[in-house]
Amino acid sequence: MIEYNVAVVGAGAVGKEMLRVLAERRFPAKSIVVLARSARTLTVDGRDYEVRVTTPAAFEGVDVVLFAGTEGEKGAAITFGPEAVRRGAVIIDNGGDFRMRPDVPLVVPEVNAEALKRHNGIIANPNCSTVQLVLALKPLHDAARVTRVFVATYQAVSGAGGAAVEELQDQNVGLAAGRAVAATGPVFPVQIAANVIPQIGGFDEAGYTSEEMKLVHETHKIMGDDTLRITPLIAARVPVFVGHSEAVYVETEQPLTPAEARALWQSAPGVAVLDETDGDDPYRAYPTPLFAAGKDTTFIGRIRQDLDNPNGLNFWVVSDNLRKGAATNAVQIAESLVEQDLLRKRNGN
Amino acid sequence: MIEYNVAVVGAGAVGKEMLRVLAERRFPAKSIVVLARSARTLTVDGRDYEVRVTTPAAFEGVDVVLFAGTEGEKGAAITFGPEAVRRGAVIIDNGGDFRMRPDVPLVVPEVNAEALKRHNGIIANPNCSTVQLVLALKPLHDAARVTRVFVATYQAVSGAGGAAVEELQDQNVGLAAGRAVAATGPVFPVQIAANVIPQIGGFDEAGYTSEEMKLVHETHKIMGDDTLRITPLIAARVPVFVGHSEAVYVETEQPLTPAEARALWQSAPGVAVLDETDGDDPYRAYPTPLFAAGKDTTFIGRIRQDLDNPNGLNFWVVSDNLRKGAATNAVQIAESLVEQDLLRKRNGN
Repeated sequence: MIEYNVAVVGAGAVGKEMLRVLAERRFPAKSIVVLARSARTLTVDGRDYEVRVTTPAAFEGVDVVLFAGTEGEKGAAITFGPEAVRRGAVIIDNGGDFRMRPDVPLVVPEVNAEALKRHNGIIANPNCSTVQLVLALKPLHDAARVTRVFVATYQAVSGAGGAAVEELQDQNVGLAAGRAVAATGPVFPVQIAANVIPQIGGFDEAGYTSEEMKLVHETHKIMGDDTLRITPLIAARVPVFVGHSEAVYVETEQPLTPAEARALWQSAPGVAVLDETDGDDPYRAYPTPLFAAGKDTTFIGRIRQDLDNPNGLNFWVVSDNLRKGAATNAVQIAESLVEQDLLRKRNGN
Repeated sequence: MIEYNVAVVGAGAVGKEMLRVLAERRFPAKSIVVLARSARTLTVDGRDYEVRVTTPAAFEGVDVVLFAGTEGEKGAAITFGPEAVRRGAVIIDNGGDFRMRPDVPLVVPEVNAEALKRHNGIIANPNCSTVQLVLALKPLHDAARVTRVFVATYQAVSGAGGAAVEELQDQNVGLAAGRAVAATGPVFPVQIAANVIPQIGGFDEAGYTSEEMKLVHETHKIMGDDTLRITPLIAARVPVFVGHSEAVYVETEQPLTPAEARALWQSAPGVAVLDETDGDDPYRAYPTPLFAAGKDTTFIGRIRQDLDNPNGLNFWVVSDNLRKGAATNAVQIAESLVEQDLLRKRNGN
């Protein structure tokens, strides 16, 4: 079996999740090195990984690099990505720096794996909230052509990194103890515990946030259809640790009944339907973030025909933002590169 | 000054809030009695109220009755409302039992106070999530006729009563202490702490919840326009104690710019705009549930032109579900009855 030298850049929540997913999915890794700001040993699920300092030379001999990515600032992929590519590696960046570049494939393997064939060494992993949206839209689009989308998000704090998780946890501890909670933390502009913050990312001139516009532009690119009209009602942060939820309305050119949509999703890769609202098991009635956390599947429930439009459907999509929304999708891209024979062949491999 | 004998039925969160609001707004009350299952003294904001057992005879001499209402079961208003009306009182029910009856006005005073003129002794207070929606829609409807609405809600647990508040608090304390949390409580079918539950109320045959359908039917009735097409994307419960948020898209017959909508809301009663996303004060950038809690105003922010439809606007509405969503609106109905001279004239008044 051909095996590859893998590097993971970043040792935070997403970087650790990438190591976990590489191990779980038995990615054919000859070696795995972690690159970060300082050298040490990192233990994930009982397995030790060598952490080296990220330098251009550290990418010598590496075949595939997973950049964990950062939110809100230029990531390591900007500095080190081209250095890795120059040394023959293919990089998969979970950050936002390369996503909209025309020469960079933006890929959810279940949706557009074929786009990987056109890579020039750099591949972008979509934003977490986009991944679960396109997974839900794709089967409907293929069957009945989606023409209009409305989406409102309920996003977990872990999408903003480890410091955001700590901030919510600290505020929760304070609230539970009956203490006044600091109104602002290092990450969120106002208290997130017991609150909802209708802002993720900065604002553009029209008043949309960067997170809201990612839902539009990234979905267009992945679906390969810029005519799809998408309204991001809001991208909001909720006091949840892991798991993004989305309330979605879609309009299709051909009408789809809820039963037809359900059948399409049930046979689609990467998604599962949880929609037994007439049953006794609350865990089968609909997905919640807590239910989806730790799983690779994107779950869909609350499937209903629109009240006014026979070509409209409403539903609820939930996925683990650190897994399928980040680490799992990146590792699946690496797997797809292997399957499609798009990684470099090396001596000794 | 004419003064009225007031009864508040219910001594839970909403009942107490009603007593608080009656005092704050200096409702012309000659007397205020609280009716509940057992007699005692109730202290709210340092003021003592006599609590009597709810019986038909307890409504003798009462001019206006505020029923705090219950969710999910037939409320006291069904049993005792007609008894109170028979004794000459006008009742204002915060519960859901009378709202859709054709002979019962469903009123948000800023929107349809004139409907009170047609009352037959019973007046219904709308559901909390409807109140803030119609307050936001009304000025746009009057100026440009709203034809289409999409709404996704982020609702606080206090909308489900005091036991729901305790359930979230208990789960928060458990989570903060690092304990495993009971997956189900008496109120919510799955854990609500650090989670989102996309269900409020029971399901109908089409898969919509009663809370979602209230947004449709109650809005139609209050706006007096059944042709308004409303899509409740989802009505979801979030781990917030007080304050409901709603992400809303509206389409109007005449186009409205965000500046025009802002101006309409700024001059409308009951609503305020918080939309300074380019400023330094995070508390003026947009409303959050924590910001709205304890206030009577419904706040609107994140006002944007739709990306695709020049006749479409997106915005975010937040209100205190116990105040304007319940107690304040009920007291305002009582005030409007006084102003419009629609309460009984009594000897000695």
